[in-house]
Amino acid sequence: MVKVRVPASTSNLGSGFDCFGLALKLYLTVEMDFSSALEISAVGEGSAEIPKDETNLIYQSTQKIFEKVGKQRPGLKIKIQNHIPLFRGLGSSGAAAIAGLVGAAKLCGANLTNEDILTLANEIEGHPENAAASLIGGLTINCVSDGRILTKKIFVDENLRAVLVIPEFRISTHKARNVLPQTVTREDAVFNLQRSALLAHAFIARDYPALKTAMQDSLHQPFRKYLIPSYDAFETAGYQNGALGVCISGSGSTILGIAQTDGKKLQHAWQKLANQLNLPAHVLIIKFENRGAEIS
Amino acid sequence: MVKVRVPASTSNLGSGFDCFGLALKLYLTVEMDFSSALEISAVGEGSAEIPKDETNLIYQSTQKIFEKVGKQRPGLKIKIQNHIPLFRGLGSSGAAAIAGLVGAAKLCGANLTNEDILTLANEIEGHPENAAASLIGGLTINCVSDGRILTKKIFVDENLRAVLVIPEFRISTHKARNVLPQTVTREDAVFNLQRSALLAHAFIARDYPALKTAMQDSLHQPFRKYLIPSYDAFETAGYQNGALGVCISGSGSTILGIAQTDGKKLQHAWQKLANQLNLPAHVLIIKFENRGAEIS
Repeated sequence: MVKVRVPASTSNLGSGFDCFGLALKLYLTVEMDFSSALEISAVGEGSAEIPKDETNLIYQSTQKIFEKVGKQRPGLKIKIQNHIPLFRGLGSSGAAAIAGLVGAAKLCGANLTNEDILTLANEIEGHPENAAASLIGGLTINCVSDGRILTKKIFVDENLRAVLVIPEFRISTHKARNVLPQTVTREDAVFNLQRSALLAHAFIARDYPALKTAMQDSLHQPFRKYLIPSYDAFETAGYQNGALGVCISGSGSTILGIAQTDGKKLQHAWQKLANQLNLPAHVLIIKFENRGAEIS
Repeated sequence: MVKVRVPASTSNLGSGFDCFGLALKLYLTVEMDFSSALEISAVGEGSAEIPKDETNLIYQSTQKIFEKVGKQRPGLKIKIQNHIPLFRGLGSSGAAAIAGLVGAAKLCGANLTNEDILTLANEIEGHPENAAASLIGGLTINCVSDGRILTKKIFVDENLRAVLVIPEFRISTHKARNVLPQTVTREDAVFNLQRSALLAHAFIARDYPALKTAMQDSLHQPFRKYLIPSYDAFETAGYQNGALGVCISGSGSTILGIAQTDGKKLQHAWQKLANQLNLPAHVLIIKFENRGAEIS
């Protein structure tokens, strides 16, 4: 039997679309063992709707490993304990992919590098940044190069906090990708590459006043923000209440604010705004996680 | 009288189009004083063709300062000593703009911030990265935000070297911009923003094996390389002879290789290749410069 704990993640951080993933102290825990048949059980967030058959993403991810090591499809018993809200841009599917890959690799004794695991996760997810943060923790910079993933990890300051407006409504990543145009102006591309470079600097050098500029975006948020009612009002209120940076978490529906030390002022302001706007949402303060997937 | 020494710069570094500028130990030195009329003299690189009248870029840059501080157009005596090859992608115009701005600000006692100077330089140049490297030295990350320039400086490892293939032929920045399409695919934009973030990490963390990926580009080099005969052959030979990264310097015609320690193997390989291809070119090894414009 193997038990894997995998952190959730926020991603993109505005400018770094399909590049940055940042792990959160919010977890998916999966116990897994060989069995005579497929048995899946789940408790916690989304437990009723998480598929219990072969369409389950954790199960499907285990199959990638078994195929890779040439193992016949074994029966599996999978016990899921999930704290990551689904379809909110908090990396629940990336975490599920990593849980399946890491758990199955351990179960069958496969010796895979992080790059091997992330390349498989990218095949499952179509983008590497949530899976990378779930696998190795911290802030990850991810490059896709001929289908392989090059990932660098930056340790995140323990004094920073994620303040998350997590609405009740959901956005599928598929839908959020469909609103994006296939071409962009060169000017907008330059706008984002300047800021993603600045963002890497800001986290490494802990130069937080630079985050507001570094988290600006011209490639996805101008289209996706219309999927989140009153996104602009949250952004404005965020910067008025101590946020270092505000952006859409992943493809939404969650809004991320980065705060220093406790983040309570931002939490209160955003909860008040959500109430005023009649937007059903929880506003949580979550620490960033420098540890990745852990096997016990 | 004021004397300003300003370093040359390479820019873009592949992925960081209009973002990264990197100062070189190759200088433009300008002496300047008030005078009864305009008198310009020049020695060194391009001295015969550098304009000696009001179209001179150093002179024009001084006027930006005099306008800003409300000073009537004074007569000026300008003595130029230039070691930066012109129209080769080595930042000669950015250095000229900085020499004019910094020199004139000193002459009339104007107290301007680096951000003020760079905002004026961006108005002159249309892009900030060469001027930023010439002003403050090191590797600069530059964001244009509502016409203002936000610049961060990264100190560059003293053990790195620029190996530069400087062809005799020239490319005007204007021409090199005209070959670029106005729109790009979202995929190519993401390709570059992933790599510009990686490049910032690579220089800050001195993670040089990452430079080869970090310096890949999808936005400008695929179009501009046809302006430089046999660019691909130089890139291939560069990576076969110890280059950590190879790219077009600025908008060309120079090819930049980054090497560790002395760079002589790369220099010899590229000089041999240039000779074989009958490409008239000098291949120089130049140190990077962490100091910016200096007044004496």
